[in-house]
Formats: sequence, C-alpha cells, structure tokens
Amino acid sequence: MERIPVAILGATGTVGQKFITLLQEHPYFTIQELVASPRNEGKTYREACAWKQNTSMPSEIASMKLKTTATPLTSTILFSGLDSSVAGEVESSYADQGHIIISNSKNHRMDPTVPLVIPEINPDHFALLADQRWKGAVITNSNCSTMFLAMALAPIEETFGITAVQVSTMQAISGSGYPGVPSYDIIGNVIPYISGEEEKMEEETQKILGTLVDNRIQDAEFAVSAQCNRVPVVDGHTETISIGLREKATPEEVSRVMAAFRGMPQKLQLPSAPPQPLLLMEEADRPQPARDVWLENGMATLVGRIRTCPVLDIRMVVLGHNTVRGAAGAAVLNAEALYKLGLLGETPAQGVDLLQLKQRAAALHETHALIGQR
Amino acid sequence: MERIPVAILGATGTVGQKFITLLQEHPYFTIQELVASPRNEGKTYREACAWKQNTSMPSEIASMKLKTTATPLTSTILFSGLDSSVAGEVESSYADQGHIIISNSKNHRMDPTVPLVIPEINPDHFALLADQRWKGAVITNSNCSTMFLAMALAPIEETFGITAVQVSTMQAISGSGYPGVPSYDIIGNVIPYISGEEEKMEEETQKILGTLVDNRIQDAEFAVSAQCNRVPVVDGHTETISIGLREKATPEEVSRVMAAFRGMPQKLQLPSAPPQPLLLMEEADRPQPARDVWLENGMATLVGRIRTCPVLDIRMVVLGHNTVRGAAGAAVLNAEALYKLGLLGETPAQGVDLLQLKQRAAALHETHALIGQR
Amino acid sequence: MERIPVAILGATGTVGQKFITLLQEHPYFTIQELVASPRNEGKTYREACAWKQNTSMPSEIASMKLKTTATPLTSTILFSGLDSSVAGEVESSYADQGHIIISNSKNHRMDPTVPLVIPEINPDHFALLADQRWKGAVITNSNCSTMFLAMALAPIEETFGITAVQVSTMQAISGSGYPGVPSYDIIGNVIPYISGEEEKMEEETQKILGTLVDNRIQDAEFAVSAQCNRVPVVDGHTETISIGLREKATPEEVSRVMAAFRGMPQKLQLPSAPPQPLLLMEEADRPQPARDVWLENGMATLVGRIRTCPVLDIRMVVLGHNTVRGAAGAAVLNAEALYKLGLLGETPAQGVDLLQLKQRAAALHETHALIGQR
Amino acid sequence: MERIPVAILGATGTVGQKFITLLQEHPYFTIQELVASPRNEGKTYREACAWKQNTSMPSEIASMKLKTTATPLTSTILFSGLDSSVAGEVESSYADQGHIIISNSKNHRMDPTVPLVIPEINPDHFALLADQRWKGAVITNSNCSTMFLAMALAPIEETFGITAVQVSTMQAISGSGYPGVPSYDIIGNVIPYISGEEEKMEEETQKILGTLVDNRIQDAEFAVSAQCNRVPVVDGHTETISIGLREKATPEEVSRVMAAFRGMPQKLQLPSAPPQPLLLMEEADRPQPARDVWLENGMATLVGRIRTCPVLDIRMVVLGHNTVRGAAGAAVLNAEALYKLGLLGETPAQGVDLLQLKQRAAALHETHALIGQR
Repeated sequence: MERIPVAILGATGTVGQKFITLLQEHPYFTIQELVASPRNEGKTYREACAWKQNTSMPSEIASMKLKTTATPLTSTILFSGLDSSVAGEVESSYADQGHIIISNSKNHRMDPTVPLVIPEINPDHFALLADQRWKGAVITNSNCSTMFLAMALAPIEETFGITAVQVSTMQAISGSGYPGVPSYDIIGNVIPYISGEEEKMEEETQKILGTLVDNRIQDAEFAVSAQCNRVPVVDGHTETISIGLREKATPEEVSRVMAAFRGMPQKLQLPSAPPQPLLLMEEADRPQPARDVWLENGMATLVGRIRTCPVLDIRMVVLGHNTVRGAAGAAVLNAEALYKLGLLGETPAQGVDLLQLKQRAAALHETHALIGQR
Repeated sequence: MERIPVAILGATGTVGQKFITLLQEHPYFTIQELVASPRNEGKTYREACAWKQNTSMPSEIASMKLKTTATPLTSTILFSGLDSSVAGEVESSYADQGHIIISNSKNHRMDPTVPLVIPEINPDHFALLADQRWKGAVITNSNCSTMFLAMALAPIEETFGITAVQVSTMQAISGSGYPGVPSYDIIGNVIPYISGEEEKMEEETQKILGTLVDNRIQDAEFAVSAQCNRVPVVDGHTETISIGLREKATPEEVSRVMAAFRGMPQKLQLPSAPPQPLLLMEEADRPQPARDVWLENGMATLVGRIRTCPVLDIRMVVLGHNTVRGAAGAAVLNAEALYKLGLLGETPAQGVDLLQLKQRAAALHETHALIGQR
Repeated sequence: MERIPVAILGATGTVGQKFITLLQEHPYFTIQELVASPRNEGKTYREACAWKQNTSMPSEIASMKLKTTATPLTSTILFSGLDSSVAGEVESSYADQGHIIISNSKNHRMDPTVPLVIPEINPDHFALLADQRWKGAVITNSNCSTMFLAMALAPIEETFGITAVQVSTMQAISGSGYPGVPSYDIIGNVIPYISGEEEKMEEETQKILGTLVDNRIQDAEFAVSAQCNRVPVVDGHTETISIGLREKATPEEVSRVMAAFRGMPQKLQLPSAPPQPLLLMEEADRPQPARDVWLENGMATLVGRIRTCPVLDIRMVVLGHNTVRGAAGAAVLNAEALYKLGLLGETPAQGVDLLQLKQRAAALHETHALIGQR
Repeated sequence: MERIPVAILGATGTVGQKFITLLQEHPYFTIQELVASPRNEGKTYREACAWKQNTSMPSEIASMKLKTTATPLTSTILFSGLDSSVAGEVESSYADQGHIIISNSKNHRMDPTVPLVIPEINPDHFALLADQRWKGAVITNSNCSTMFLAMALAPIEETFGITAVQVSTMQAISGSGYPGVPSYDIIGNVIPYISGEEEKMEEETQKILGTLVDNRIQDAEFAVSAQCNRVPVVDGHTETISIGLREKATPEEVSRVMAAFRGMPQKLQLPSAPPQPLLLMEEADRPQPARDVWLENGMATLVGRIRTCPVLDIRMVVLGHNTVRGAAGAAVLNAEALYKLGLLGETPAQGVDLLQLKQRAAALHETHALIGQR
C-alpha cells in the first residue's frame, strides 16, 4: 500500500520525537518532512535535536534537513507537537493553506469548531470539521492527564451516568517537555501546581464526554474538580478519582463495564489501538508508573483499586503513559481513525479532497452505528 | 526545674530516634531509659541503633544500655514509638503496671476510652482517661497523614461546619519506618496504596473532630474519603483536599479563619508548639515538601492554594513533616499538654498521682474555657 | 530442535526473574523446573513471587509449582540465581548429584577449578572443568561490575598490555536484589561502600584476564584498584576507568581496538550475543544508564569518553545493564557457549554425558583457534 | 563593631542566595547592595528572585531594590556569584573602579596574579595581590569539587608528599545553578560529564597546592586525573580519591595527619571556620551526602574509608557541601581571612586603603608563621 506522506511540526521537541518513534514503520503514514523553529534552519535533524528517546535515532530521520515553520510544506497531514506559545498561529496558518493538522497542542482544543477526539469515546465529534473556517482542518487530542480520566469515565457515563468527579493527579516530569522541570525543583519533592492543567482537565473532559447536537458540542453535565501535582516520576501520570453515579452501582458492576469497554479503534482495529483500552489490575498496589506504563506499548489506560467511596460513589486509580497515549500516540490514533473512517478519501497518498472530507465528516453523526462507536 | 524522667519504647526505630532528638534539652522531660526489642538486650544504644538522623547521635544517649520490653521500668512516662505488631500488648502491659503511655502507635487509637488528641483541636478528650481500665493510662496521637488533614479541617468545622471531605495524599517514604519501602519500589515511581492508611484517615479524623458527650466521643458527622499514595519524597506528606461546607464561605473567608487559628498549645505556650499552627503560603506552587517541611521546626501545618471547588466547596493543599508533627512531635506535644493542664500533678518528678490524674481528666470538659481551648 | 530442559534455582529472586524473561522462547533451553527456598514449598510461582519485571509474568510460568532446594531435580542444567548465603552449599550439593550448575552467585567464582568465564574473553577457561571434584560441574560468570570492567579491558590487554587499572563505580540499586537498598538510604544520596564489591572487582578481573597454564589460571599481572558506590539509579552500573598501558597508544588507537573487538559469542553467533560487544558512543556525555542500558537488549557494554589520563595512560567511562549482561544474561551466554562448543554433547536433551564434557573441556585450550577466540 | 558594607553580584542566583544566608548576621560584613542582571532593573529582590533556600527570605533583603551590573556601587567589597558568561568582564570592570572582588566565579582563577585561596591551605598566596593590574583587587576561591580534593590533599602533601592523584566525582545537581540540570536528564540517571570540570579540578589543585616563589605560583608537581559525574543528589559532592605518596605511610598515619589538620581559619578563629576542617568518619559506609553534608554548618570536609590502594598508595572518600564550603562559604571565608590578616585595614568600614592592602599582601609570605599557617 502506498503510504500517506506526513510532516511533523515541532519535530525536535519531546512530543515530536515521540511522533518519530510512533510513525516509523507505520502502515498508513510515512514521514516526509520535519519542521522545527527557525533557529534550526538548514540543520539536519541529528544536528538540531537533543534526542532523548531510549532507542537510537532512526538513521533516515537523522539525515533529513529540517524545514522551518515559515516554509510551505508538501505533506497534506501535519502532526503537530508544537509548543503552545507558537502552536495557535502556526497551526492556523497551515490550516489556511489547506493542510490537515493533527495537533497535540492545547491552543485549538476548546474552539467550538475543532473536534477534541479520543476515538474510543467520541469519534462522532469529527463531524465538527464540516464547519471549520480553514481551507484545511484542525483535529486535536486531549491534554495528557485528561486522557486517562476521560477514558476511565466514558463507559461509566454511558452505563450509569455521572453526577460529579473529583480527581487528584501525580504527573510525570516528561509531561513538561524538555528542558522542562529543573531537577532542583523536583528531586525528592512534590510541586502541587501545574499551570493551566486543572482547567484543562475540567473543561476538556466535559467537551469530550459531551454530546453532538446540531453540529455543536453540548458539554457533559457533571462537574469535574481536578487538583494537579508534579512528582519525581519520568513517565506516567497517576490519578486518584472519585465518581458520583446517577444510577448506583457496585464496584464489581463498574469493573465489569470498564473491562468490557471497547471503542471504534478496537472495532476497526486501528494499528495503534490497544486491544483492551482499559486494563484492570487486580493487585492492591497497582497500577504503578515504573512498572505498568509500557503495557500495550504505552497505549492502554491502567485501572486499579475500584472500590466504594464514602463521599461520592466509586473510587479508583488510573494511570497512563503521558507522552504516548497521553500525547503523540493520541494524535496518531486520531489520524488512523480519520483514515479508517474514510475522511481522508480513498487514495490518500494522492492528496486529500478537503471538500469531501468535510462532507463526510458532516455525515458522521448519522453513521454512528456504522463507525463502530459504542 | 526538676525534669520528669521518661523512657522511650522502640528507641532504635525511626520514631524512637525522633523522640531522642526532640527530647534532648527538653524543659519538662529528661530521657532516663531506652527500651528496644529483646534481640538488643545488653547492647548500648550506639551498638544497637542504625542512626538515621542528620544530626549526630547525642553522646550521653549513645552510651546508654538498652532495656527490653520485658523489663520493669522506673520512668512514669513512656513515649512509645513501638511497631504496631507489638505495641498493643506491650503498651497495655506497661499501662497495667501504672505507667502513663504517650503513644504514637495505632493500636489503641480507636479504643473508646483512649484519648486520640491533637492539643490544638481536642484537649478536652483527655477526659476519657477517667474511665480507662488500666492502672496507668494510654494517650495517643493521630496517624501522620490524619494530623495535617485534621489540623486543616478543625477551624473550618468550628466556623463553617463541614459536610464532606475528599483527600488524596502523596506520602513520604520516611512514614514507613526503616528499612521501610525498598528503593526498587519507589525510585521514579508512585505506589497508589498504603495498607490501612485510608481507614485510619477516615476514622481518626471523625474521632478527633468528634464531640465529648457523657465522657464518650460522638464522631464528627461528615464523611471522609481518603486515597493514599506513596511518592519518592523523603520527609513530608502532601495532601490535596476538597471540603463541603455547611455554611458557604469564600476562599478568602476560609483563609482568614485558618490563619487566625490558635489552640491550647499556642495559648499555654507549650515548648514544642508552633506559634502559628497553620501557616498559609501565598505562592501558587507551595507548599512543597523539599522546601517547607522544616518551617517552625517541623511542627507547622503548611497550607496553600485555598480556592473554590467545582464539586464540593473549597479546595486546598496541605503539607506537614510526617515524622515530626505527624509522629514523635505530636506525642511530645501531648505530653506537654498533659503537664501544663496539671494532669501530671504539681511535682511530677516525684511520680504522678494516677488517681489525681483521672480525677482531673474527668473535670477537664467542664473547664473547657479554662484550658484555653478554642 | 528439541530444547534442553533446565531448572532455575532462586527463581523468585531478582536474578531468577531475569532468568525467566531471558529463557522464555530460548532456542536451546526450556524451563522445566523452578526452585525456591523451602518456605515457598507447594506454592505456584505466581503465589510465591513478587514479580518486579516490566513485562507480565508468563502465564505458563505463573502456574508452575515451585520445588525447593531440598528436592532432587530432573533437569541436567541448573541456572542459579541463589543468594550467596545459601548458594555455596546448594550448588555443591546439586553438582555432586551430577547436575551442571550455571551460576551467577559469587560463592564458587574464585575456586581454582571453577571456570569464571565471559565467553568473549576466556572461553578456554572452561578447560578447568576437567579437574572439578564434583560428579557434575559448576560454571560461574563474574560479578556485575566486574563484567563491564573486564569487557573494556580485554581488547586493551590483548593489544597493548595493561600495567594498572583504577576504577570507580556508580552502581544501580537493582544490583542489591529485592528488597535490597532501603529507599531511605538512597533517595537523593550516594552510599560510598558496597560490601565485598571492591574485592570482587579486583580479584575476578585478574582471574578472567588470566592465562590457562597446565589447567590452572595464572592471574593477570596488573593491579586493579576498585572503589564502589551505590547511586539512585534503577538499572545500569556506570564506571570511570583509568588504565596504564604496557605499550603506549593514543585514544584513537584504543578506540579502534575496542570497537573492533569480537569474541567467540559473536563468531559462533550465540543467540544472546550482542553483535558488537563494546558499543562506543561519540557524544561527550554518554553513556548514561537511563538512556543506554537497554541497547542490544541489555547485553552490550557501552563505552564513552576515551581520552588521555594525566596519571595513567587512558581514561574512559563504561556502562552496562547489571541484571542482564551483568548477571542473568551472562549466565545464559555461558550456557549457550557450552552448548555451541559441544561440551553438552550432540543430543543434549537426552542428558549430558559428563565424562565427555570433562574430556572435551580438557581439550578446549588446544582448540583455541577452532573455537573462535580472539 | 561597625560592619563593612558589602555588595552581592549575581544576587538572585543560586550562589547569590547562599551569600545572603551566610552574610545575614555576619559579625564583619553587612549587605548593602544587591546586584543582578539588567533585566531585573528596578525590581525588589522579592520580585526578581526565585528563592530556593529552605529558610525564608530575610524580610530586609526582600524589599531591597536591585542594582544592575552597569551601576556604580558604593560598597568596597563585592561578593561575586556571577555566572561565568559575564563574570570575567564585570569583575574586571569593578576591580578597575577600585572595588575588592571576592569571587566564586571561575574566570580569573587561573590568572597568575589572582590568588586562588583556601585559607586553611595557602593564605600566603594573597601576596599575589601586590602585583595585580587593577586599581582594586580580585580574590578567588576554588571550584566546588576542587575544594574537597584540595582540602583532603593538603595535609598529606605537607607531611608525606604526593606523587599522583586519581579522583572520580559524584556531584550534586545544585552545583549547576538554577534552572541547571533538567530533571529529565538526571532522575534515575548518571551524566558522566560536566563541561570544564575535570580541567578545573586538575589545574586548580596544582595552583592551590603550589608554592609562592618570587611572588609567582609554582604549581604542585604531582599530576591529577579527574573524572567528573553528575548524580541525582541535591547537595553534596562525593569523591573517590587515590593518592600516590612520596614517603610511604599507612592508612592510620594518614588518618592521624588528616584529623590533626588545622589551618589559619582555625587558628585565628574566623567566624565561618569549621573547628575541625577535615572530619573523619569511622563507619564503613560514610560519608554520605544526604546524611552528612550539613555537619559543621556545611563548612567541613568529610572523609571516610581511608585505606590502602593496590595501584597508588592510599584511597579514601571525601564529601562536602558544594554550595556552602564549595562556593559561597569559601568566598566568605576568604573575606574573613583578608580581614583578620589586616589586609582590609584597621577601620574597614571607612573604606579600604588599596595601596596599603597591596603592601601588606606583599609582606604576607614573609609573615607566614605569624598568620598562623601550618
């Protein structure tokens, strides 16, 4: 099969590097362009990049010349791991030029016309694309800590209904990029604050679990209270969650519903989809980031300690790999979903028909059953 | 002034070592006996103890011969840092022999006749002593993570009333004693479970904030939901808290009430009392264990980020030194309170009059105002 | 091919667990028996084992019943990850019963009749087996930190000759097993002492690089000074080395010789052999344990910063995975070497002919060229 | 006594903050001016500074207005914690204007006319001041890791003579300033390289232990080989050292000489002088940064494991507080030495007589005995 040529925006950053490792040998996509900030103009990727992955830099990537965000690109699909200080403008500009942006950046997530999608939960939200103001399109995935919360809540909301959510996070330092958190601030320490993170968790969760009505998202009705902390962990966000239920349920009932949860990525067998999106662990002291974060290649959401809450109804612990499932992997899964849903057209390598994409997106919410959503 | 001779039970352990550093040069008490497990019989303290404090072992302590828990003791007051596997029986046995046990162990905390006291909050609970079955007496302080939660809640419960509490902890490894948590389990990791800890936080908080009625504790009426986690921090438990209020209040009002909080230890100027028991921090990212845990010699409860909660009413972060204010320091403060309240008699060095102690304790709840409680 | 059934001694420990992960799907060997201490008698592996690997416990292993070290075994080859407190006696006893022990324990390493082998360096030392007093045989690999030192020194000794070696280590906590180092002792700390470790590095290096003369090892003639430290790293021992050369050489010459180094495992393509045993890194600040320890599946020795030494002649940094190449992987490579050298006979699954093994071992040093040694 | 007004250059940085904590309540000096980079112009110290000390920022400091490095200063003595990127030029400029710079920066250390002084070792080197080209003067202290090496070597060189030194360091992250080492690079990791550090240790040690001949330093004659590593420790550089001796000595003899070592700061009782500059520890596994770094207020050099070396003669472990004794504390001790030696004149608060300073400095090497040097 001919693979779709893609570009990576912010290719030298933490998320950009993860994009490279996840798109190597990808069955649908092939990396054609690497884009970084103007100060790296003319350098090869090897020269410009402080490679921080635990595998070697792929040699064909290493020798690629970097383009800058001012350069026109030839790839139709752009994976964006840009820093939020520039992502808004750069992504808009490329979308204006007709590119499809698959973005991990926060800037456009809360835009009412931008789908904020986790394919297991709300692939029908791609329908928003029909109304986007750009010639191209912008699709976003959630914040890293929102991801694991939303994944845990989705089957519970669908089956029992949710009235309220309390979450307290213990987040890994890789979530702040590179150089990120100074070691002096975090070795043997907890920082009980991450700028903007609590707002993201509270708002994004409501949008993702919201309902598409007249091609607008109606937010989920339950309140979310998030308290976010940084801890000296390298990879993996751990979250303690308390959930109020509309219809009462025992921990066993909740466990059963969570374990049985499958979404569109599983039904359509997307290449990056974890076979079981919510992995339930039996041991009293799991999940743990240093042990479990790489299960299912970092694409699973690990769940443990499902039990009764004396204040709300149900409590649990969730964990996920913040730079894989919580960032680059989420974007790749979104791109795979777009492809499998036919939104990229039949012969995508020839260039995406944007008009068709928007028409098909608009039709998505009518074909709910077809696309295999819950 | 003649000082009261005291013994330390479990003297070689983590809490025992902290007792030694806190009782060195104490104005009321002087260490007369060190008690450890039978396997250390006949050894000096230096020989038996893996000293883990960051100050040198005091030389007069180093050369003391250890007694064992089977030996009769001459000290009237025994500070107990015994492991819970033996504390129940050993403390009961010494109490039967007429000793006054100031215990940090969990074993007797929930006994209806045993005061579980934080002197800033519930010194009137010492009245329970009147009904104790032992010839001597047992007084306990709370679990380390309960301490900082109860301290934060006390002025809020008194002023506004509390309907519900959600707390999620990030606890230091020193809380598990020595050798405690294996490094392989915690470096770069989070363990989302501490055996028995959540139950302790939920039950002890309700007892401490409960009301003395007919010399029985009536538990506080609000539910507490605790989720406890171990993180790679050496000293200092951090807790995110959400609180439902009976009478609504703004974050500013709550802050004012907390900052103004003073209890009996402050009013009677107990030697170990922090001048301001709740220290409020203004910075968005504080308190932090690696920075703030030693403020007021480790006896303060640090509070930050007081703000509105979308689910309950008020959220905040609290922090305290788990082995000082959360353990040995709490026991020492209890002993100081007993002394200043006159429960140990006028010339304590001559031996405590136990009958008198129980009579005076019984009278305590009538002299509420007198003892300077809130 | 029929695979040789093997047993794992100390199967629930850190090294035992690594044996299981390395012998899963092994082309020569199949795990038939798991042996643990008597207190686990009758339990399944899942019941007895605190599994600490980052992959799931293989299900066919999980359900195996544990045997105890008192039980007769049917496997001819026993991989031993026993604790040194029991390894000496248990291994001797099994060797007396005719088993071939491939041991990672220190107890027999310095026995003059026991081969202490790194197949890249001294496979001819297997010849010592001919003189062993047991009916069976005991083969050992080196201490974890010795491994990476010896690997780095081998090509230098062969090409230029060595006059003296200074080494200072920074060793991972996984090297002390489980529970191993208490977290209170190592978080944010360095422990400048590891019991017995310096002696092992100094003695074992001289034996491994020694010469076989009349079926006795004549130690290498250069002195080794080792200073061993524990640091808060999970996996990977880092070592700074200074080397005095008999024949002077530039850093470039030394680099060339190290990069070109290949031994018997590479020439005979043993399944666990790293294609290039010494991986040289160009970057000024590499190798680093958190980045490089899993290169070549944890079987490589990483080398960096080869440069002139103002006191001796050449300095460098080496790194390796202490529980893979430095322990279980070293033992597995020794077993693979025995097999490929024909010491286990032609149809090993039928049972090893011990007489033949010793005869062939005796002949080994005559067939030096044949077996592909340097 | 009237105290000498001083300024702190680089006041908001890591070393600058340490200067503030060490000069609070100082008997000779009082902080009059705080100087930072131009981007902080007009701000108060509280506004500009990310305070990272574990004690509160002194309130009288907090409200001081920052001056910038372009501003003329009124203080005669300037303590410099400037970053090396600017220190060379700024310090020269202020020295030209007649100020006395007590610098912790590396820039002028190897200048043949600049004293690189550790007062316990080479206070006679202040004599170099006589030949300085500036109107004022520049005095430097050593690099942090050089400090503890030089302190350990000094009595050994004096008593037995040294032929060669091998040192391998494990350095704390606070040594790289703030933000310094990214947490992603050092949590659970070792970085076997610190830019420029090895050269500093090798050269500075030879200068400090060198001899003043015709008002020039003749370097010590032994070679030093340093290998420098960063480890996940917050404060405290640990170093393993091997030393060749000119005159052979046993570990006991070396221990005795080191324990007995006293220098000018001890003899003249400088306020910041540790009573015993080299503290020898008996335990096999000490010194350790997380336990011992604050002994003698962070001004001691801790020494342990003095034993025979198979390659050179004597081995040991040393440790010291890199930002106290290894940086700001070293500079303060130098200033105290200058004062006590009378180089600052009799009534220093009235302004230093620079001509007199240089004359007295020139006379210093003749008054060796007088100033209490070893």
